[in-house]
Amino acid sequence: MKLLENMVKQDGKVYPNNVLKVDSFINHQIDPKLMMEMAKSLYEYFKDKNITKVLTIESSGIAPAILVANLFNVPMLFAKKSVPSTLKRNSFYETKVHSYTKNVTNNIIVSKDFLHSKDNVLIIDDFLANGRAAMGLVDLIEKAGASVVGVGILIEKSFQEGRKLLDKNNIDVCSLCRISSLENGKVEFNKADDILKK
Amino acid sequence: MKLLENMVKQDGKVYPNNVLKVDSFINHQIDPKLMMEMAKSLYEYFKDKNITKVLTIESSGIAPAILVANLFNVPMLFAKKSVPSTLKRNSFYETKVHSYTKNVTNNIIVSKDFLHSKDNVLIIDDFLANGRAAMGLVDLIEKAGASVVGVGILIEKSFQEGRKLLDKNNIDVCSLCRISSLENGKVEFNKADDILKK
Repeated sequence: MKLLENMVKQDGKVYPNNVLKVDSFINHQIDPKLMMEMAKSLYEYFKDKNITKVLTIESSGIAPAILVANLFNVPMLFAKKSVPSTLKRNSFYETKVHSYTKNVTNNIIVSKDFLHSKDNVLIIDDFLANGRAAMGLVDLIEKAGASVVGVGILIEKSFQEGRKLLDKNNIDVCSLCRISSLENGKVEFNKADDILKK
Repeated sequence: MKLLENMVKQDGKVYPNNVLKVDSFINHQIDPKLMMEMAKSLYEYFKDKNITKVLTIESSGIAPAILVANLFNVPMLFAKKSVPSTLKRNSFYETKVHSYTKNVTNNIIVSKDFLHSKDNVLIIDDFLANGRAAMGLVDLIEKAGASVVGVGILIEKSFQEGRKLLDKNNIDVCSLCRISSLENGKVEFNKADDILKK
């Protein structure tokens, strides 16, 4: 997606250890018009797939996920990193997700009330890097006996393991911006998966 | 807001210690159409106030905040409960917020890059109970020398301290649903602040 690639080039900052800082428009401050264009692009890619639910993980996935869910007119569900006081033991699906950026492993959960075996679930997240968050969400969906329709991503770091991992599991991935390298502080792109020209 | 009151009556569950569980449509699974109607209602209330930025706190405030920001066509900013690796010391405003539900005190932060003295900021959150989150966000805005235009809330527990605290500080509050009591597991309402009839 050209609009997003241009924003990444213009406002993204590259940090050591392949960290790309996009907190001025994606995951701290959010540009709502850009976020809406991205949601439309993901909707276009998956619109014929009979989506019944959009699933993401707190916190940075929530903004794109609610906009995508609104276009599909289906509920949005976000996995939580802690168990709310109102959820009883055995009333939720749980899996472990390791974050390489923060070097912590979180249990993530969704209530059993909101994922059912007939659901066709679209996973949405801001970043795809090592793929642990996406695979954790896949695991929650499979625990519910529901179907994974695909994964919609804003920014993919194609040089890390996540994309390969999802491809190997035959999961349909649409990444609006695919970064092939962040070496020497310079952002290089692969061809994106989206089908809109913006 | 009638639509929201009806959902709270129909799908909300009252737990001990005045906990209202609305995780089927507000803060775990989200009903995107209801969320959009709520965003429109908050937009209508504050639309003449020259808003330049919408501020919330992760995670449950993000969905309403991005929809409201989209209507105003201004950036949305969410305060974080941990410091990202990409933010240097002294590059963010910080304040403490106590959560009575979880009985923990979190430092919340926003980057100094995204709040400026000329900003007119609308605070958005899902719940107003003791008002600590809202007052924390007010503190961050004041540390930046920016102006607090008001606070837009989905569900207010009017019998707790938050509303009084904001009124005492002369802050304009719009709550789409105001709960006067959760006693004996029954939800009772005050008159809401919003101006739409839905």
